[in-house]
Amino acid sequence: MSKTRIKTYDRIVQESLKLFNEQGERSITTNHIAAHLGISPGNLYYHFRNKEEIVYQIFLQYRDFINARLSVPTDRQMTTDDLVNYLDTAFLAMWQFRFMFYDLPGLLARNPQMQSDYNQFVHTELKDILAGFFREFIKLGLLKMDEADIEPITLNIWLVVKFWFAFEQTAWPDAPITEASSRRGVRQVLSLLKPYVQADFMPVFNLLAARYAG
Amino acid sequence: MSKTRIKTYDRIVQESLKLFNEQGERSITTNHIAAHLGISPGNLYYHFRNKEEIVYQIFLQYRDFINARLSVPTDRQMTTDDLVNYLDTAFLAMWQFRFMFYDLPGLLARNPQMQSDYNQFVHTELKDILAGFFREFIKLGLLKMDEADIEPITLNIWLVVKFWFAFEQTAWPDAPITEASSRRGVRQVLSLLKPYVQADFMPVFNLLAARYAG
Repeated sequence: MSKTRIKTYDRIVQESLKLFNEQGERSITTNHIAAHLGISPGNLYYHFRNKEEIVYQIFLQYRDFINARLSVPTDRQMTTDDLVNYLDTAFLAMWQFRFMFYDLPGLLARNPQMQSDYNQFVHTELKDILAGFFREFIKLGLLKMDEADIEPITLNIWLVVKFWFAFEQTAWPDAPITEASSRRGVRQVLSLLKPYVQADFMPVFNLLAARYAG
Repeated sequence: MSKTRIKTYDRIVQESLKLFNEQGERSITTNHIAAHLGISPGNLYYHFRNKEEIVYQIFLQYRDFINARLSVPTDRQMTTDDLVNYLDTAFLAMWQFRFMFYDLPGLLARNPQMQSDYNQFVHTELKDILAGFFREFIKLGLLKMDEADIEPITLNIWLVVKFWFAFEQTAWPDAPITEASSRRGVRQVLSLLKPYVQADFMPVFNLLAARYAG
């Protein structure tokens, strides 16, 4: 693969992400993307057969982003820095890939490969990561919850992250989605954790929550 | 208004709700509804200018259903029976009007009057009802939370109820939405309340949760 070809491929993915985030994926066509990049539609079709293939590549970037940043360390104890990293990752993943969450059910319905990979990702990898994270924090005495609480709270966190932008858009249809929306989403996740925080850990937890204020 | 006219009007609303719930609102046209009722499209248009007007009437029924069943009593103390009633109402509202929640953002986007009324309803009436409910239960010593916790947990409950079916549909696309899905939604709401339940109240809370098992 020549250098130009690689570069065009990557540029299509990156600029599509930008356009989707700014204007919504539904209103952007491959023609818009080609025009925005100053390339011919034919050149774009040389790299991608259709828009769904571009969306799918962006989804893979999203998955890689989360997998690269989140994992339960095996060579050391977890610390509160790990919690900061988890929350920042949730925030960044929501914000940088926000178009995916404007209408995720619709997006997945139009993209069967992505639907299948997405489910694989969240049902196994992401669920295991979150459950592992809770077990570590329970072990460290920072959170207090029963093993049976882990599954429902994990589902609730997943649901809040997945639907936060759709929730804000329907609840306040005239307000644009901004970085502050993403911070509010993280605050809602923190509110799910808060009742489980042990007293000793509460001051650190409050400092951490203050990072997402406003 | 003649008796027949009233009856046809009501039948259109009731049978539309049934069709929307079973097949999704997007795939049902006014022609489908007329054929299902054995009336002419012209007769249907005599009562409703378009499908959105039918959807809007169903929304009003939904709102009336919730308002009629949920209110903080002013003439007596609340009891755990009120919590049972609240949860049953959430369950029934989700289940009986489930098509509204398959893709609420899309539905509201196509129906500006409903969008406006829906927001009015949830931002004022429903929010006040939920907040009043929490304050009563804190006062009774059944729940323990700070005043500042009420808003975020209210938002989380609202988000879970609003998106539970969409969440299940995207997470398990091959599984149909059933009454069990609605029970699972109520269980997720219970999991949001659980960490705030006081020890004395926990046995009753667990009995209550068992009503939504399976």
